[in-house]
Amino acid sequence: MDISKILTDLTLAEKAALLSGSRAWDTAPVERLGIPSVMLTDGPHGLRKQDPAAERFSLHASVPATCFPTAAALGSSWDPDLLLRVGQALGDESLAEGVAVLLGPGVNIKRSPLCGRNFEYLSEDPVVSGHLGAALVRGVQSRGVGASVKHFAANNQETDRMRVSAQVDERTLREIYLAAFEHIVTVAQPWTVMAAYNKVNGVHAAQHPWLLTEVLREEWGFDGLVVSDWGAVSDPVAAVAAGLDLEMPTTNGTSAARLVEAVETGRLDEAVLDRAVRRVLELVDRAARARTGAVVDFERHHALARRAAAESAVLLKNERGILPLDPGADMTVAVIGEFARTPRFQGAGSSLVTPTRVDNALDALIEAAGPHLKVTYSPGFALSGAEDGALRAEAVAAATAADVVVVFLGLPEGEETEGTDREHLGLPGTQLRLLEAVARANRSVVVVLANGGVVETASWDHRARAVLEAWLGGQAGGGAVADLLFGRVNPSGRLAETIPVRLQDNPSYLDFPGSEGIVSYGERLYVGYRYYDAKGLEVAYPFGHGLSYTTFAYSDLDTAVEGQGDDVVVRVRLTLTNTGPVRGREVVQVYVGDPVCSVDRPVRELRAFAKVGLVPGESAPVEFELRARDLSFFHPARGRWTLESGDFEIAVGASSRDLRLTASVAVEAPAYAAPLTLEDPVGQWLGHPEGGPLLREAVQTMEGSGIAHDPDILRMVEALPLSRLVAMGGGRLDTTRIDSFLTGQSA
Amino acid sequence: MDISKILTDLTLAEKAALLSGSRAWDTAPVERLGIPSVMLTDGPHGLRKQDPAAERFSLHASVPATCFPTAAALGSSWDPDLLLRVGQALGDESLAEGVAVLLGPGVNIKRSPLCGRNFEYLSEDPVVSGHLGAALVRGVQSRGVGASVKHFAANNQETDRMRVSAQVDERTLREIYLAAFEHIVTVAQPWTVMAAYNKVNGVHAAQHPWLLTEVLREEWGFDGLVVSDWGAVSDPVAAVAAGLDLEMPTTNGTSAARLVEAVETGRLDEAVLDRAVRRVLELVDRAARARTGAVVDFERHHALARRAAAESAVLLKNERGILPLDPGADMTVAVIGEFARTPRFQGAGSSLVTPTRVDNALDALIEAAGPHLKVTYSPGFALSGAEDGALRAEAVAAATAADVVVVFLGLPEGEETEGTDREHLGLPGTQLRLLEAVARANRSVVVVLANGGVVETASWDHRARAVLEAWLGGQAGGGAVADLLFGRVNPSGRLAETIPVRLQDNPSYLDFPGSEGIVSYGERLYVGYRYYDAKGLEVAYPFGHGLSYTTFAYSDLDTAVEGQGDDVVVRVRLTLTNTGPVRGREVVQVYVGDPVCSVDRPVRELRAFAKVGLVPGESAPVEFELRARDLSFFHPARGRWTLESGDFEIAVGASSRDLRLTASVAVEAPAYAAPLTLEDPVGQWLGHPEGGPLLREAVQTMEGSGIAHDPDILRMVEALPLSRLVAMGGGRLDTTRIDSFLTGQSA
Repeated sequence: MDISKILTDLTLAEKAALLSGSRAWDTAPVERLGIPSVMLTDGPHGLRKQDPAAERFSLHASVPATCFPTAAALGSSWDPDLLLRVGQALGDESLAEGVAVLLGPGVNIKRSPLCGRNFEYLSEDPVVSGHLGAALVRGVQSRGVGASVKHFAANNQETDRMRVSAQVDERTLREIYLAAFEHIVTVAQPWTVMAAYNKVNGVHAAQHPWLLTEVLREEWGFDGLVVSDWGAVSDPVAAVAAGLDLEMPTTNGTSAARLVEAVETGRLDEAVLDRAVRRVLELVDRAARARTGAVVDFERHHALARRAAAESAVLLKNERGILPLDPGADMTVAVIGEFARTPRFQGAGSSLVTPTRVDNALDALIEAAGPHLKVTYSPGFALSGAEDGALRAEAVAAATAADVVVVFLGLPEGEETEGTDREHLGLPGTQLRLLEAVARANRSVVVVLANGGVVETASWDHRARAVLEAWLGGQAGGGAVADLLFGRVNPSGRLAETIPVRLQDNPSYLDFPGSEGIVSYGERLYVGYRYYDAKGLEVAYPFGHGLSYTTFAYSDLDTAVEGQGDDVVVRVRLTLTNTGPVRGREVVQVYVGDPVCSVDRPVRELRAFAKVGLVPGESAPVEFELRARDLSFFHPARGRWTLESGDFEIAVGASSRDLRLTASVAVEAPAYAAPLTLEDPVGQWLGHPEGGPLLREAVQTMEGSGIAHDPDILRMVEALPLSRLVAMGGGRLDTTRIDSFLTGQSA
Repeated sequence: MDISKILTDLTLAEKAALLSGSRAWDTAPVERLGIPSVMLTDGPHGLRKQDPAAERFSLHASVPATCFPTAAALGSSWDPDLLLRVGQALGDESLAEGVAVLLGPGVNIKRSPLCGRNFEYLSEDPVVSGHLGAALVRGVQSRGVGASVKHFAANNQETDRMRVSAQVDERTLREIYLAAFEHIVTVAQPWTVMAAYNKVNGVHAAQHPWLLTEVLREEWGFDGLVVSDWGAVSDPVAAVAAGLDLEMPTTNGTSAARLVEAVETGRLDEAVLDRAVRRVLELVDRAARARTGAVVDFERHHALARRAAAESAVLLKNERGILPLDPGADMTVAVIGEFARTPRFQGAGSSLVTPTRVDNALDALIEAAGPHLKVTYSPGFALSGAEDGALRAEAVAAATAADVVVVFLGLPEGEETEGTDREHLGLPGTQLRLLEAVARANRSVVVVLANGGVVETASWDHRARAVLEAWLGGQAGGGAVADLLFGRVNPSGRLAETIPVRLQDNPSYLDFPGSEGIVSYGERLYVGYRYYDAKGLEVAYPFGHGLSYTTFAYSDLDTAVEGQGDDVVVRVRLTLTNTGPVRGREVVQVYVGDPVCSVDRPVRELRAFAKVGLVPGESAPVEFELRARDLSFFHPARGRWTLESGDFEIAVGASSRDLRLTASVAVEAPAYAAPLTLEDPVGQWLGHPEGGPLLREAVQTMEGSGIAHDPDILRMVEALPLSRLVAMGGGRLDTTRIDSFLTGQSA
């Protein structure tokens, strides 16, 4: 496609028409010039392409596709290779359906566990979100299909989502809410970025020049297309001017007419319009080069979905090694809970996939059990949440008769959906009462959880000897649970989100979901473990936590600093050893703390991680490279990432609260102190190598004011801007040398 | 004084000169017209008038004056009558020294327990601060001396205090940080208000038109003078334009010259300058009418200071009635701690008073002890904080030999001073180690605390059977402690500030004291108990807590609602009975909660209180009137106080966590829903009595879009502004009736 030529051939009306969808999921074609439309479809963990045969639009009427584990699960894998492979499979399925852009991954930070869409997001931490999101993008795009990193930005709740303004300071945006997007844009070059519904500091994200142009393109070098979330554009002219390229879905010509009028009346520069049109044409051109005739091996994808679910489940507790269960044992396992038979494996809303098939854990357990292992089943509770004493009694009887009980609990489907936030973290009361009754009957209880957003565990997990958090694990999640319970796969998922003791402990608790169109991010950068650690709060299960059927030892931490300032590299090396009985994979986590800094910083922040597989007795070196950015903070006054000289604490461990090795490294960076001014406080002057002596000399001339003699007064005026001390001193404070210094400094 | 005439007689230069001080503490005279200068001096709990005989200025060179208990103590009295009397005494002492304006009270909210100046402030709650501050103002002004309510506004820390900008949303300002000022201005008409050093949302408080003119004068009707804190003005022209009248101290003509130039160049309207000059003249005029030749009865004031300290001390715990001690008993009391002999009774900085005399607790205890009660004394620790094993050993020996041990602990003087914030809440390690050693020797330990800001108690108070928080109790505090320990006065102080378990629990912990010139009030209105209650956190001692040597029963709660909307009155009546053995005073506290509201609100907020004295067996009715404002919140979008219809929870109790009686009252208020617009979300339309049916009817025409049929889609678009649903629907959504409704609604 000769895009420059096409741009000159297109009429203004045609150009404007290209900037919004022609239908629900398609860009506008220009048949006169042979420009086809391309299709963009949901979603992040499986293709949701509208079934062309369906009578009318419905979220449930999409063509069959592999439903991979949701992002809440995949995020817990801490495994970029896995995300890459899932991305490749999603790309293949998109290709086979003629889809140009798959609308994912979702990398919004899990600010509150109540966000109804958390199941679509990866983590409370931007490094986990960024690294895993980038891998998914690479995988999808390796097939010639575009990804769409969403929802840009600060889209952290569903309540009032199209109007609410996230009030968030720039440092917090940069360090927390934008960082994953930045990482993905800079390392994986996504074809598209999706502008969110909400406002950011009062401006619609889809019409936000600072977000869409200054930060995304000018700073990060994004060269792809910005598409709106479906219906996110309020003013199409403001959107295009801000840097949005494609409004979706169709507005039936309304937006195009407004764009034409804006150009004709001079409100919008046609060159700005052309820039967006060029990006749409570039997307169409990229899509046109995609391979056609791809055929999907759904069996292979189902197997990948099972492996992905198994890698993502997190073994929260496992007392006295109740897990794994031995499939060859002669025993009775009572499987209890409707979710064992009727799995919850995905959430509701735009990510809803029509799966090619669905495994359930019950069948998978029965299939995998050896000849002497008897599996019984009782549903235990009704999905409706209605109390059913008969169901519970049956389950208790089964538990009484069993050697081990596996109870499948989870959130009701209606509590996890796009468009609605959750109201609490609790499992339904019927399920908890079932668990209590079962645990009274049999103390060998294993709980398997199905949920996308975290659930409160502190009130009930003492009733279970083991808890396996299986998330919404996709269509093959049931098989994965069987693999894990029977030890065919050793659990290696780690929490990408803290499980708090109580909802009230969450940092956003008093600021979620806001009201009257405003949500204040008052907790600033203290999101997730950054808050729990800074406040010294107990948590139910910490960020990064996850057990294994084997054990790992960390040893030989070695750190080395090379270079300084922007070029600094901190090399972190250690040895990891599998000290337990079986093969397993460990997620080695590297946290960095900066205990002395001119701004407040979290106690420690995840900066790198690696998932390492070892057989029993095996040792392997694990190496990381930290760069200047990994040690820096976004300086709010300077408006840039800033590295300060000093000692940084490097902590390596198996979770944010299971730090095994620590070291301190000294890093050098150029000083950046702004020049002194008369408006700086006396204390700042006194602490300055040149300004301090000058001022001390000068105040000696203020005889009679007492200031030269009474240290209490000097302490009281430390905060006084020097200009005011001068004014208060009348002519008595001789500023001759101070003035010369200021002149010389600015020269 | 004929102010209008003087105004026309004054030259521009003379007028400008009147707007800043002539010296450190005096306004500028205009001798030509017989306008005298008047003196303003520190401070809130005692006069600090510079000693004219002193060679040079020093905080320690002031004329002797009665040092009343600090505000931290007085705030804990919860006794407006007491504050009135202290104010009268302060007025009398000012009058005797020819002082026109006494710079106090300080009513800033205790946002963080680390604020170095908290000893000068009353409470973490605006109702306590407002009611007690107003009483002090009334008392001072009843003598013809002006008060100066300070520091207006949001001056809640000492760190970087002259530059830092408090970033705080308007609702929080209105409900928390301005509310005490508002109350005092509207009910007590202070002669002056003092503009603070800090910035509020980026603008210097002393140059803040919204604060000084819109809110203070136009909304609250303040008709007095606004004086700057000493050195708070950065730009005198901006200050006068914003509503500041008097810059202090002298700038030796610099500011006057800038004002003259500003008027001459037209940057400042002379009428604006005149307005400030008029207020200065009005102040001078008021002061000129003050009684002269007043003589102070310092003995009477000392006795008042003793009574005030006794009313303000808070008995935090008293296990098995170890207190009061019987002065007539035959026993040995070991008094331990340097503070028993060398009391800490005030803080450092501008509030530092040269006391007329200082009592210590040791002498007062010895004096009050009967013939059979032996008092021994050991200093136990050195004020320097240095470890001293011999001192400790001597104290342990004394404790071993005693029946009861009274240990005097407290903060070092250097930790409580204007200009510097504290870094932790802990008592010095030497003192805690002393307590531990003493408690091992004798389990009958009473701790008496001397401190202005709260100290952490959770780590050590199990070692004491009783803890008496005596604050910085002024020059007669030592005698008051003896009165309380011996039961001559029954403790009736109540905490006006929560004592948290740990500093980290404090709501501002992650946002104090900010950095780089910014402090974010991210906790919004969840200050003090509002936060601990909303987060369900344990505290060491709750807001409102304080024990007595008697007990009180609460009964017969009766509520009645009269009127509605702005005129609503909720009458709360109950019966209080002294059910214990001795006469005592109880602080009956009324909290209001609004569980269902369109914005988030604290669980409950103090709205009224009364201190009631009863003899044993006596019952008395206690009545309160709550008004609309007591039930209202400041609506951020409407920009006004708003009362919403609904049920309010009225809780009456002895502390914020000792609620004895509760009732629910239904209050009616006019609906204030803004008219619907096309930009309102679909959900808001659906919930509207007229808009809902219209929209439901309209979407039926969107056949083929699925929206009329699939409830999942409707839920997903609840947040969609209606305009966008219309745009997405093209012509299919028939808006004829909606358009007519909108037209009719705005008509």
